[in-house]
Amino acid sequence: MKLYIGNKNYSTWSLRAWLIIERHQLNFEEVALKLETEGFYKALSGLSPTQKVPVLVDGELVIWESLAICEYINEAYLSGEAWPDCPKLRARARALSSEMHSGFLALRVEMPMNIRAQRHVQLSAAAQKDIARISQIWQTQLSEFEGHGGWLFGSWSIADAMFAPVVMRFITYGVDLGPQVKAYMDKVAACPAMQKWCAEALLEQDVVPGDEAGVPR
Amino acid sequence: MKLYIGNKNYSTWSLRAWLIIERHQLNFEEVALKLETEGFYKALSGLSPTQKVPVLVDGELVIWESLAICEYINEAYLSGEAWPDCPKLRARARALSSEMHSGFLALRVEMPMNIRAQRHVQLSAAAQKDIARISQIWQTQLSEFEGHGGWLFGSWSIADAMFAPVVMRFITYGVDLGPQVKAYMDKVAACPAMQKWCAEALLEQDVVPGDEAGVPR
Repeated sequence: MKLYIGNKNYSTWSLRAWLIIERHQLNFEEVALKLETEGFYKALSGLSPTQKVPVLVDGELVIWESLAICEYINEAYLSGEAWPDCPKLRARARALSSEMHSGFLALRVEMPMNIRAQRHVQLSAAAQKDIARISQIWQTQLSEFEGHGGWLFGSWSIADAMFAPVVMRFITYGVDLGPQVKAYMDKVAACPAMQKWCAEALLEQDVVPGDEAGVPR
Repeated sequence: MKLYIGNKNYSTWSLRAWLIIERHQLNFEEVALKLETEGFYKALSGLSPTQKVPVLVDGELVIWESLAICEYINEAYLSGEAWPDCPKLRARARALSSEMHSGFLALRVEMPMNIRAQRHVQLSAAAQKDIARISQIWQTQLSEFEGHGGWLFGSWSIADAMFAPVVMRFITYGVDLGPQVKAYMDKVAACPAMQKWCAEALLEQDVVPGDEAGVPR
């Protein structure tokens, strides 16, 4: 398998797909592209119909859209273990993942992932509402599965991968949602796959101006 | 099962979830809510965390996000038959469905679904790009599966449900993408479930001003 990704410092969608593959120690080749460069579009030309990362190439299969990549990896390589086993919990995990996949636009625009930075940012009411909803999701899940592994559904699932870039944003922009959420954010940030991603992000020197919101704190 | 939906004339996400249930003739109760009314938010209060339709209630399970509803129905009631059987085609069907689920924002804003209307609309470059991508998706799929059922993956799949509201938009706004696409659009519009939805949409008299773009044609 080959996974085409963008800059580790910035590319949230790349991170989601990469996490599921890396966490389960699947054998893959990483193709690192620099966002918004000529080389980026050249590499994806003829490969991804949307010209976006991530793109997974597995033999003749070319698959784009991070949620679809996660579903494929889960079915093809993980015997379904990356979703909760219980059908009702799996449905909820998919609902939360879909909500993240299609929503939270204000948060995504106003608080771009920028792993190496520490920033203050003035948020719109819409972004504050997004943060409140994220807080509600995490607290509901963490309370329900308290003492059962520390992930959103107890064991690690695709839902944790979907929200991992939000954790990195909240660290960058200093969003404090209390001790229960902090413990979860610490857990996400400390897991070996995330540590590896962040270490590599810190080595990058490219700057994507549109993702440099806020002022240093 | 209960499915909470919005106005049939306007509510694209309701249509997607409703189609998979109706098409497979599953036993369900439909709860019709009027978009953007007090009663709408009251009915969803305490039920859907996002205050949006559709919401599926199946016993104790409450599930929101149309793609997650489709995945749940498919697993729980359809033995998986609403996705292509081949893993690689299933991956592509999920990628296309995810792309629809999270993208095409310009098309969605500038060409709101409005089944009873016939309109002209001036489109931005972004919306025209969205239409070109839809055309590319449909033509690629229809060519690959030509003579094998007429749906995007030959047999009907969740991907067809995801794009069904786009078909209704293209009819309303007079988007002509050639005979191959027209045959597909005709097939979607003529299927019994879609006919039933549209007949009921035409009986509705409520007007949602924000969804009334364009001028009559």
